[in-house]
Amino acid sequence: MIIDWKEIALNIYDKIKAKVSLLETKPCLWAILVWSNSASIRYIKQKQKWADYTWIDFKLIKLDENINENELLKIVSDFNKDKNISWYIVQLPLPKHINENSVLNSILPEKDVDWFHPINQWKILIWDDTWLIPCTPAWIMNIFESEYIDLVWKNVCVIWRSNIVWKPITALLINAWATVTSCNSKTKDITEFTKKADIVIVAVWKPWLLKENMLKKWSIIIDVWFTVIDNEIFWDAETDSINNSWHKITPVPGWVWALTVAMLMKNTLKSYKK
Amino acid sequence: MIIDWKEIALNIYDKIKAKVSLLETKPCLWAILVWSNSASIRYIKQKQKWADYTWIDFKLIKLDENINENELLKIVSDFNKDKNISWYIVQLPLPKHINENSVLNSILPEKDVDWFHPINQWKILIWDDTWLIPCTPAWIMNIFESEYIDLVWKNVCVIWRSNIVWKPITALLINAWATVTSCNSKTKDITEFTKKADIVIVAVWKPWLLKENMLKKWSIIIDVWFTVIDNEIFWDAETDSINNSWHKITPVPGWVWALTVAMLMKNTLKSYKK
Repeated sequence: MIIDWKEIALNIYDKIKAKVSLLETKPCLWAILVWSNSASIRYIKQKQKWADYTWIDFKLIKLDENINENELLKIVSDFNKDKNISWYIVQLPLPKHINENSVLNSILPEKDVDWFHPINQWKILIWDDTWLIPCTPAWIMNIFESEYIDLVWKNVCVIWRSNIVWKPITALLINAWATVTSCNSKTKDITEFTKKADIVIVAVWKPWLLKENMLKKWSIIIDVWFTVIDNEIFWDAETDSINNSWHKITPVPGWVWALTVAMLMKNTLKSYKK
Repeated sequence: MIIDWKEIALNIYDKIKAKVSLLETKPCLWAILVWSNSASIRYIKQKQKWADYTWIDFKLIKLDENINENELLKIVSDFNKDKNISWYIVQLPLPKHINENSVLNSILPEKDVDWFHPINQWKILIWDDTWLIPCTPAWIMNIFESEYIDLVWKNVCVIWRSNIVWKPITALLINAWATVTSCNSKTKDITEFTKKADIVIVAVWKPWLLKENMLKKWSIIIDVWFTVIDNEIFWDAETDSINNSWHKITPVPGWVWALTVAMLMKNTLKSYKK
């Protein structure tokens, strides 16, 4: 069975819109975009679109792609000081001549609605996840919520490659009292762990790594990434065979962006209310 | 087989002493102690003893137990500004009327030789563990090094209760490419995971939780905590039965403090050299 995250995403957007409509002033999300590559422009357009949909003000500052790191840091510092700007994001990826971490770490933690700052990430790790959550781990947790999945007593297997996703998602799962195994490309036998997992989260860019015969009946598969080879999309999980059996699986890509951006809007509204 | 960490600890101290003897000026470790409870005084005495042994200068500031949080924060702020103080620790536990986190988070990350500050903890999580490591996870990693245990391809099971230990140790193990399962009191069946673990790390204050029949042959057990009931010490692992079989196990308590403090001296020397 495919988990319909289009429905989940639209549900969230409608709820946000309903809440915003009751507010006296609209929440405002500022975004800094260095106009350089098609990925960052594509992402920002999604954010613009869904901010409009939920009646959140969206103010975009476009910077020339030749801007250097110091100039960008100066603008971030101005944003930190500006009392009219409550929360903002710097759209990634940045051009290669700019160090992304230096920029992200100079955003004031209180204004960092993406929740990327070390201090904010650390809050998740010390169980303080009552505040905000970064968007990718947030939508994964949101799917569990939408599907009424209680994580206590559950075995979860996280097969990861990137550093960005496993850390907060592992921490959030552990905070929710799940038993979590973190597998990687040097794991002796991944099947040992997937076979007994109630939930498998996979994010490795390996076409069809996860197959139906590696899974336990009735397990739930969250497939976070996909690979494009010769214009064809390959998921980390072999969606067709898994979907035809006892499992619930998220389709990728489809509405993944809508769901990720929904979490950003949710963070914006949450910040506004605090 | 018992892992002889007295030997491991003494080895480390002798190496540190040899290195310090070659330096032109001695590294100096400052410590702030609020003179209140016997635990913190006992800990600080260990640090004094081993600093003396390794020829590291140890300067202790003793504060009255009635000091309030603001007064202590003022002293921390003075320590941060003082150019003669390169690294220092605030001895835990602090009296109950003082918020430990507020104090630890106000120590300048560059002077925080215990490596407790959020920014420093975060560095471990992003794989930047070339700098310092907090003392408890550090000695665990040190045992693997002393025993020539390569963590790649290994299955490690961490059974934890406290928030302080599992986070950095899980991160360090994952950084070293181990496959790590984090179990807790809500895990359906811990034996499922311990049975296939090459290494089990246990820190839950549950007398004899881990028994020989829950383990795989030749596995290594790191037992971090112990419980005292009626003046008798109970380990988390049933040391006697496990020791009589195919496993390697760390004895607790014995030299655990010596090993922990050895890591603090190692951090001090490492900071000095940077």
